[in-house]
Amino acid sequence: MAAQINPTIGDLEGNTQKILDALARAQNGGVDIVVFPELSLTGYPPEDLLLDPDFIEAAEGRLKEIAMETKGLFAVVGTPHWNRSGKEKPLFNSAAIFRDGSLIGFHHKQLLPTYDVFDEKRFFEPGESPTVFEHLGRRIAVSICEDFWQHSETVGYTSYAVDPVKQLQEMEVDLVLNLSASPYYYERRQQRTAVFALAAKALQAPLVLCNQVGGNDQLVFDGRSFFLNEKGELIHLAKGFEEDDLIVDLNINACPCTLPENGFSEMYRALVLGVRDYFHKQGFQKALLGLSGGIDSALVACIAKEALGASNLLSIALPSRFSAKESAIDAKVLAQNLGIELKEIAIEPLFQPTLNLLEPHFAGRPWDATEENMQSRIRGQILMALSNKFGALLLNTGNKSEMAMGYMTLYGDMCGGLAVINDVTKTNVYHLAEYINRDHEVIPSAILKRVPSAELKENQTDQDTLPPYEVLDPIIEDAIEKRLSPLAIAEKHALSLAFVEDLVLKMHKAEYKRRQAPIGIRVTQKAFSKGRNVPIVQKWR
Amino acid sequence: MAAQINPTIGDLEGNTQKILDALARAQNGGVDIVVFPELSLTGYPPEDLLLDPDFIEAAEGRLKEIAMETKGLFAVVGTPHWNRSGKEKPLFNSAAIFRDGSLIGFHHKQLLPTYDVFDEKRFFEPGESPTVFEHLGRRIAVSICEDFWQHSETVGYTSYAVDPVKQLQEMEVDLVLNLSASPYYYERRQQRTAVFALAAKALQAPLVLCNQVGGNDQLVFDGRSFFLNEKGELIHLAKGFEEDDLIVDLNINACPCTLPENGFSEMYRALVLGVRDYFHKQGFQKALLGLSGGIDSALVACIAKEALGASNLLSIALPSRFSAKESAIDAKVLAQNLGIELKEIAIEPLFQPTLNLLEPHFAGRPWDATEENMQSRIRGQILMALSNKFGALLLNTGNKSEMAMGYMTLYGDMCGGLAVINDVTKTNVYHLAEYINRDHEVIPSAILKRVPSAELKENQTDQDTLPPYEVLDPIIEDAIEKRLSPLAIAEKHALSLAFVEDLVLKMHKAEYKRRQAPIGIRVTQKAFSKGRNVPIVQKWR
Repeated sequence: MAAQINPTIGDLEGNTQKILDALARAQNGGVDIVVFPELSLTGYPPEDLLLDPDFIEAAEGRLKEIAMETKGLFAVVGTPHWNRSGKEKPLFNSAAIFRDGSLIGFHHKQLLPTYDVFDEKRFFEPGESPTVFEHLGRRIAVSICEDFWQHSETVGYTSYAVDPVKQLQEMEVDLVLNLSASPYYYERRQQRTAVFALAAKALQAPLVLCNQVGGNDQLVFDGRSFFLNEKGELIHLAKGFEEDDLIVDLNINACPCTLPENGFSEMYRALVLGVRDYFHKQGFQKALLGLSGGIDSALVACIAKEALGASNLLSIALPSRFSAKESAIDAKVLAQNLGIELKEIAIEPLFQPTLNLLEPHFAGRPWDATEENMQSRIRGQILMALSNKFGALLLNTGNKSEMAMGYMTLYGDMCGGLAVINDVTKTNVYHLAEYINRDHEVIPSAILKRVPSAELKENQTDQDTLPPYEVLDPIIEDAIEKRLSPLAIAEKHALSLAFVEDLVLKMHKAEYKRRQAPIGIRVTQKAFSKGRNVPIVQKWR
Repeated sequence: MAAQINPTIGDLEGNTQKILDALARAQNGGVDIVVFPELSLTGYPPEDLLLDPDFIEAAEGRLKEIAMETKGLFAVVGTPHWNRSGKEKPLFNSAAIFRDGSLIGFHHKQLLPTYDVFDEKRFFEPGESPTVFEHLGRRIAVSICEDFWQHSETVGYTSYAVDPVKQLQEMEVDLVLNLSASPYYYERRQQRTAVFALAAKALQAPLVLCNQVGGNDQLVFDGRSFFLNEKGELIHLAKGFEEDDLIVDLNINACPCTLPENGFSEMYRALVLGVRDYFHKQGFQKALLGLSGGIDSALVACIAKEALGASNLLSIALPSRFSAKESAIDAKVLAQNLGIELKEIAIEPLFQPTLNLLEPHFAGRPWDATEENMQSRIRGQILMALSNKFGALLLNTGNKSEMAMGYMTLYGDMCGGLAVINDVTKTNVYHLAEYINRDHEVIPSAILKRVPSAELKENQTDQDTLPPYEVLDPIIEDAIEKRLSPLAIAEKHALSLAFVEDLVLKMHKAEYKRRQAPIGIRVTQKAFSKGRNVPIVQKWR
């Protein structure tokens, strides 16, 4: 059984309880072998909590509690474990192996990803060899996540000197267990099964992978633990984006199944889970957001309603002198469709006094982005006041295209505790909206059809400032996610180099804004913030 | 000669020019050997710029240009260099060694710090052995920064399996060069000379260390390159916090010198350099800040004036209905003392309309922190409007004690491009103010004497909410910088455990605010942001 649990970072008591509950279910279900996700005891990634020796001691202490509840089982639990050798880092990223009430040993992760969102060499020392245990006549190999990725040569920015799959080929193995904490991003899942299929085939052994599920800050783990037969064929797949027990009978030759279709339904579920866990793991229930009548805030409202429930969501329309009447109407229809409360607070009673107050200090300078930002910041002020007064967390509604280009206002539309869609380009915002409307119209079609506008001056549209999104978004994906050079991007899309270089320069220059953005939910291969460490003051373009 | 230069991250052209200029000075001065700082070609730390192959190619290309200008010299330049072995990471952190117009080899850094602010294993593969070159009959060892720290066992959270100093003991060495990028923090410098003295003594060879100088985002490098004799005695010391050529005659037995006194003069210079480089390396000249009449903004004004010049600094007093009259007077005297422009803009014309606008939506709930935050955000709005209109960068004036406790307003007093003193506790704010006033009164003594207050409600003081700073600040230092547990802190200071645990819980709970703070300048062993990776949603206390 793969016990696909959703741990909370640092919640040793709660996570231990989830592990004990799963062990009891296994015992009651007549299961022999139970495997949990990587670092299931601490949640993944625990980051600098690992630097606290008390934390490690407390985690190691929980293993005794767990051991006692493994009567009749072979169980494998992910945990940090002291490296007593005195060699380099003081910890291993380990799997604790229990048999029939006793802790019988450990496997230490051999390949430690230190790239993208991963920084395991900050904390851990690599294990020296693969680990095989015998149980009920089977030789069981225990491995942890990255251990099996080198074999397919799909690891990021690294080519490990060691390939544990090759090492295991010398060791005759009947069954392979893998404890994973493999985060979701769009179209990741096919890659994951393909990587492990290669390993199962190489070892000619069936393979059970147990993946963590749940949202932890920016990262969403999709679960979808799986069982592959010795030919590498996918036989069983656990649920995605929720806890699940994947129970497999190793004695039955079941037929291969196929991965259900990927796409925006998954991205939507990842975002919902990311929001839900950000709130509930902190004990928050209530959220609010500004509803502009535009597509971004409409999408965030849909996601938040799904994650938190309509009664926990307050939406605020904040029209200005530049807002189209249709925006307010569309916002109202959307709120009705979702069954969420909508307040309207016009910003003019604060905008004109702000203009008046500053006019003597502006020395006759003309209207510019300053006055646009001012309106955005008045909205931020109002939303944060409501957030503070009612203890509801403000959701940010900015998208990845804006984040890339700096087309947003610090302390204005950048306010919020969680930036729900800041890893979703405008193009994908439309795809997600269409997914939400697949059966019936939730987001009014007028919102989908309207030309995008910040409505911060007369007759403004996004395309006054930005290229059309169908041109811009592929460039953002190539520059940020695929790390292509401006020259490669210009050639790929048959655009002028100067045009692409100008856009990339704008992306660089917005770094200081992004550094102050709320955390977002990662749904692509490269989100802003976690996993992207770019200096603010730098001259390389 | 140690060519202690101040490179800009990613500025290959500008940094190469600095290197060529130093080589010319060396040639004109009859110097034989020139050593530059670690990664002097790219600036340290280049972070994810290193993931761009074009960047590495461009850096390697510059080496040819440099080689041509090394006629008659032995010169050592820090640069990233391809690891062509295909083993793990594709780069080395290298020193390129030139002799008389030719590139004759490389040393690859053996020990790669991956802890605190360092993440070198994200990018680099360790070198396999120490490197010794012969020049003019001398056997010269080339080493890079961390290579020599293991020998003194003072590295962070790591105990390297290899000690390059021990390896060099087998190799007979006449002179040791070390390329460093060793960041400043309070009382770091004594540690650095002590560490390298051990190495010089062990090798019985004189040692020249060339350290980078300058501010790069959060990090300030203090320079202070030095020359130790074969007994480990300090013979020559380069300037701190500015570029310098440290020229040493190896044939003269000079007398040992002592390190000039450490303390708040150094912290002050670090902050000034951090501000100056943040601005000038980006091409910015002008700054503005809010001047409350309190000690924090007074200190930031002094630092910014020193860094940028009085004519580039605009200060704004933003009194409210709760501001003491004395605050405005003190702000005026301070601005006069510094010779900086001061505007006064009362916030009442925006505060009352904001209260009025929201009153119907607040459902009769009483005055609370919401209304305090509101005033802080009005100030943010005004300061950002002036920043946008005049293209002046807003300086944030929050201190580390506030940052630790979350005693600050998101999008209010947390606004700004650079948080000048957010690694300086309130206690150290006073120490720095006293240092500034050491010869004559720059900061009015009334500001130093007044009880700290946010002035956001009637008769408010910081100590309504926080313990006295003389109690709080040592706890912050122990919890954040020294990573002591609440129990250890309670015992150390003879405080109740519950009291300390409550403070530590508040520190944890402010993590979401700090994540949206502007970057600050690191002056202690552990600042918030860079080098401190703590999840927002987590349950370990």
